[in-house]
Amino acid sequence: MEVDEVMCLPRLPRVAVCGGTHGNELSGVYLVREMLKVEKKVVEEEEEPVLVMIVLSNPRATQQCHRYVDTDLNRCFTHATLNGPMSDTDPYEIVRSRELNTLLGPKGSRQAVDLVCDLHNTTANMGMCLITYSDCDWICLHIFRHLQKEIPDIPMRFIHFDVSNKESYSLDSVGKHGFAMEIGPQPHGVVRSNIYTAMKGGVQHMLDWVRLFNSGTMFKGGFVDVFTMVKHIDYPRDSVTHNITAAIHPHLQDRDFCLLHPEDPLFQTFSGETLRYKGKEPLYPFFINECAYYEKGIALSLARKRRVMGFLVFKG
Amino acid sequence: MEVDEVMCLPRLPRVAVCGGTHGNELSGVYLVREMLKVEKKVVEEEEEPVLVMIVLSNPRATQQCHRYVDTDLNRCFTHATLNGPMSDTDPYEIVRSRELNTLLGPKGSRQAVDLVCDLHNTTANMGMCLITYSDCDWICLHIFRHLQKEIPDIPMRFIHFDVSNKESYSLDSVGKHGFAMEIGPQPHGVVRSNIYTAMKGGVQHMLDWVRLFNSGTMFKGGFVDVFTMVKHIDYPRDSVTHNITAAIHPHLQDRDFCLLHPEDPLFQTFSGETLRYKGKEPLYPFFINECAYYEKGIALSLARKRRVMGFLVFKG
Repeated sequence: MEVDEVMCLPRLPRVAVCGGTHGNELSGVYLVREMLKVEKKVVEEEEEPVLVMIVLSNPRATQQCHRYVDTDLNRCFTHATLNGPMSDTDPYEIVRSRELNTLLGPKGSRQAVDLVCDLHNTTANMGMCLITYSDCDWICLHIFRHLQKEIPDIPMRFIHFDVSNKESYSLDSVGKHGFAMEIGPQPHGVVRSNIYTAMKGGVQHMLDWVRLFNSGTMFKGGFVDVFTMVKHIDYPRDSVTHNITAAIHPHLQDRDFCLLHPEDPLFQTFSGETLRYKGKEPLYPFFINECAYYEKGIALSLARKRRVMGFLVFKG
Repeated sequence: MEVDEVMCLPRLPRVAVCGGTHGNELSGVYLVREMLKVEKKVVEEEEEPVLVMIVLSNPRATQQCHRYVDTDLNRCFTHATLNGPMSDTDPYEIVRSRELNTLLGPKGSRQAVDLVCDLHNTTANMGMCLITYSDCDWICLHIFRHLQKEIPDIPMRFIHFDVSNKESYSLDSVGKHGFAMEIGPQPHGVVRSNIYTAMKGGVQHMLDWVRLFNSGTMFKGGFVDVFTMVKHIDYPRDSVTHNITAAIHPHLQDRDFCLLHPEDPLFQTFSGETLRYKGKEPLYPFFINECAYYEKGIALSLARKRRVMGFLVFKG
């Protein structure tokens, strides 16, 4: 009989649930608004074992139903940006990132909230993904395993961006632990009931897990398949206008996390030609045809998959 | 044996294909750019029986990948707006609508182009729709029948907005004949190969029909199912904030053109409650959860269907 490796971790008294970090990703916007209503009702009645902070991250962008007003808020949480010199002419999101860092951080400090769950949508057919900067944070990995067990009808993946804490740029990096909960496909500026309900379930089960963990429940080890981002691929573009000259190939569209092999169709040009994947290694595509990444020069991202064996985890 | 009623119509020497009337509806943007490239190549080689004008309607909005810059261009083509007093402070789209009216119209005049095909996308699951202001324009109805026959694998509907020529507000109303070609589902700001290819096929077959018609081909009568818009339904909203409090019900989402009966589920509130359709008459829903219509107060539109019997049509 195999015996789990054991890890004892401090409890998680403060959790932040953030939505509207991108103002046109509407599941998180409406879920956070709904949670704020309910919070107001129950705050006097219930004794919460967890302090849940509910945050609408970018109220101005949300008001305009745009991803951002001046610059992408979810790229502003590097140490350099948070701690750079301040000026009256700072873009709105730079100012807002510092407000959020004061509220939920400071990033990297003992005062930071214990867990940040930041809610996102994608136009890609990615199901539910937890996106983190670590492949060995067993709080995030156990929450992922719990969601997998509790929500078996939604495809679920764990994505790892291998970026240092200093260079990490997204809101969830402000917490001691943190992840983005990314759900799609949903057009930006649209709310679909099925996606909203999936996110609501994801957040509820995440909070349930934190309460169970805090109250002393042990979580057995096991494996998680981790998709580590390897590289991005841009669209083919016109060398003069920089306009894209092809769309994702119909054989690849909506096939997020289906292994892409060398010579598989990648793009279809607007004149009808097929362009193929020229990489040497089969990799897993994700964020295929994400709306917001056209301007970032990303048509899709590619990941390597590996199985991470887990620890038994309990509160110390 | 039934004999067709016969209608003799003038030929169509000038056709306009317009894309980017809404700058974030990308199939039309990229199709028009592609057609402009090809046009440059073939203009010296081919003797065209039809003058095809290819127009990027809203270049500024297209540049920003927004629906519009100041106001919705596709609501600016009423007689009142086109012929109102001009001023230096006019919104960009008002100025642009007058430029387009000069280029393709003037609306209602003998100089107007013979046919305007204006390319649009929707986030609704509508397949391909031709949208017009007439249920008896047998140029548009025969083009629709031709597309139905030539593109059998895409669901296709003919939508009629019963609005007078004076009040008609969209770019296609500038031509002697005109329709919007609306294809979905596709998120705004995204181009999907399958939707792009469908639109490309739709435009090619439309132009083929015009060439056949101009060269004397007779088109036999037959029927068309016409969906006439009856009313719009808005989302439930908070009386103070005006924010929506519900999304389209999952049973209704993506069921465009499936008959909606009294008491069928219509919305699901963000707290999980089902709201039902309270109309007395079964009607056909369309534009279900169209992104751009949140701000217009339209969650879906409802139509009555009736079968229009057609005329044999030929060029006089």
